[in-house]
Amino acid sequence: MKSERYKVGWQKLAEIDGEQGEKVIEALKNIAPDFADMVIEFPFGDVYSRPGLDLKSREVATVAALTAMGTARPQLKVHVHGALNVGCTRQEVIEVMIQMAVYAGFPAALNGLFAAQEVFDERDAENTSE
Amino acid sequence: MKSERYKVGWQKLAEIDGEQGEKVIEALKNIAPDFADMVIEFPFGDVYSRPGLDLKSREVATVAALTAMGTARPQLKVHVHGALNVGCTRQEVIEVMIQMAVYAGFPAALNGLFAAQEVFDERDAENTSE
Amino acid sequence: MKSERYKVGWQKLAEIDGEQGEKVIEALKNIAPDFADMVIEFPFGDVYSRPGLDLKSREVATVAALTAMGTARPQLKVHVHGALNVGCTRQEVIEVMIQMAVYAGFPAALNGLFAAQEVFDERDAENTSE
Amino acid sequence: MKSERYKVGWQKLAEIDGEQGEKVIEALKNIAPDFADMVIEFPFGDVYSRPGLDLKSREVATVAALTAMGTARPQLKVHVHGALNVGCTRQEVIEVMIQMAVYAGFPAALNGLFAAQEVFDERDAENTSE
Amino acid sequence: MKSERYKVGWQKLAEIDGEQGEKVIEALKNIAPDFADMVIEFPFGDVYSRPGLDLKSREVATVAALTAMGTARPQLKVHVHGALNVGCTRQEVIEVMIQMAVYAGFPAALNGLFAAQEVFDERDAENTSE
Amino acid sequence: MKSERYKVGWQKLAEIDGEQGEKVIEALKNIAPDFADMVIEFPFGDVYSRPGLDLKSREVATVAALTAMGTARPQLKVHVHGALNVGCTRQEVIEVMIQMAVYAGFPAALNGLFAAQEVFDERDAENTSE
Repeated sequence: MKSERYKVGWQKLAEIDGEQGEKVIEALKNIAPDFADMVIEFPFGDVYSRPGLDLKSREVATVAALTAMGTARPQLKVHVHGALNVGCTRQEVIEVMIQMAVYAGFPAALNGLFAAQEVFDERDAENTSE
Repeated sequence: MKSERYKVGWQKLAEIDGEQGEKVIEALKNIAPDFADMVIEFPFGDVYSRPGLDLKSREVATVAALTAMGTARPQLKVHVHGALNVGCTRQEVIEVMIQMAVYAGFPAALNGLFAAQEVFDERDAENTSE
Repeated sequence: MKSERYKVGWQKLAEIDGEQGEKVIEALKNIAPDFADMVIEFPFGDVYSRPGLDLKSREVATVAALTAMGTARPQLKVHVHGALNVGCTRQEVIEVMIQMAVYAGFPAALNGLFAAQEVFDERDAENTSE
Repeated sequence: MKSERYKVGWQKLAEIDGEQGEKVIEALKNIAPDFADMVIEFPFGDVYSRPGLDLKSREVATVAALTAMGTARPQLKVHVHGALNVGCTRQEVIEVMIQMAVYAGFPAALNGLFAAQEVFDERDAENTSE
Repeated sequence: MKSERYKVGWQKLAEIDGEQGEKVIEALKNIAPDFADMVIEFPFGDVYSRPGLDLKSREVATVAALTAMGTARPQLKVHVHGALNVGCTRQEVIEVMIQMAVYAGFPAALNGLFAAQEVFDERDAENTSE
Repeated sequence: MKSERYKVGWQKLAEIDGEQGEKVIEALKNIAPDFADMVIEFPFGDVYSRPGLDLKSREVATVAALTAMGTARPQLKVHVHGALNVGCTRQEVIEVMIQMAVYAGFPAALNGLFAAQEVFDERDAENTSE
């Protein structure tokens, strides 16, 4: 039986990442199902569900960090979807990435923008409003 | 004579980083005065002054990125001040850092929190309201 | 009341990091007591307490990663203590760090070795056998 | 004529990385044959052949570091093969990667696990026992 | 109307990166045309056009940094082209990458060399002399 | 008896880093004397002594990489000394660091410049001409 943290986390994951997040969990089922549970429980059950910072700001923080780090392209794309799902505009996502040129260099910003372009194109192809 | 970008940048720097930012610029004057100008012109004149993302969200993005990168402690402290100066609460700064445990690991979050603690202590010593 | 994960985690933390880990938790109490709980619950309650990899190998992995990353000196020192506490020899710790020259460069290995030296000196001063 | 370090290194490379390592050396022959020699001499001739840490622990250290760094996917895959070749179980490799979520964040762990999945699939396709 | 910095930057970009750089700017036009301008104005208009360091040394510095960072493969390839365009020999590019094994580890050097190999092959296919 | 590589490396180390490099080797003698030998043999005996790239360009590459990485302040300071010892001007060192703002962000450039300032001050105090 799944824990309360899992239930809270699953709901939060669905709210933020929708279909994208579920695909990640599904992909983990084969190799590390326990870690799939942890992904739901800790980031989404424990952290994103905390009060004290609104969900839009949380996604701004994540998009900024993953763009700056430059080592997590698949997760960055999931969270560009996430940012748009919780109310960020495309322009806000672009602004965060441009700003990362200042802190992590122009290549980090460029690679972030090209990842965002792919997400925008996917959403256009699916007629998602944002 | 300073450029228009410099003037816009200097005003934005003053708004965000106050005395902290001016100290950085002052410290550069001896070794690389041209770079001091660039710091004002590009990050503050060109980027932070752009519309499309509010200043509070910009500081959330910067605090997140610098906490995740873990290589820029002095600049992180300047931007914790900055975040508080433009309207973030201490709890919001703390939430951003806790969230970075998910994306950059627990040591990054811990080192961010200890840097924030130092900023909070400095502000308490100076009786700054936030 | 603390969760079962907290209790398991606290015991595991005590086994690995002893006094060093407790100091970290104590330092967090002021700024982010919830995060202090998370540090005990997730890394120690959920991860280190898993079967499938012995504790000595877990500390080898952590010392290797923190040496390679080069952004977490305080945590590296805690885990050099930890490695020695769970049965690694000083020479094994040194070997891990030398090996990191191959994967993360000579500066990472050098900075790791100098951190280890400090830990060894602390333990010599306290007459800890390993 | 090749040096003694080269001979020792080549044997160690064969023991750890088998066919995978030889492919890397082969790929370097065209652009930087001297560096191909260095790869055999320093990491394998000088470091992996040292006493003081068993080969299984050395591979745990390497898999941990490369997973945490997140910038060396091809080399991580070679060393997942290597870890399995020198006696690690698949579960031990998975545990190392899960643990890296604590030190380098969940994306690093996820990307490591997906790389490991590819290695496991390759070995299944070739009927390698581990 | 474009700024003076833009004009200087565009000329410098053409001198260094030729067709490669123009493709990057073109790719940005759709998602972030303002950032395309910034890429021309700041790196090329403000930085590369400065006296005090010759262009060949500037490209050595960039190739070194991007190889060491390991997070910017497309930009590394653009600057391997750039280094060759401003007078570096292929062997000099290779030497820089081998040297990065010392500072950022063997995987960084290997991945840099394989990127360089791709650039050399592209230039051979186009009969570029260097 | 020391190897030929050691002798070549020691001479190259003396040429580049002078007293600074010897201090690092001395500091390693207690904890990892074998690694002290490796530092002389591989980076200095095998890499810096290669033809194909002049020593000044090699130091430009190292200063660039260490500034961009931001995790190796002591080694960066040693190589700012090294760059000046083999013929770089102070302005050339400063230019490399300013350029790193483009590739690794403004904090990396700022922290590099402040490290360079310390080196310049040390040399002024010792009346070193460059």
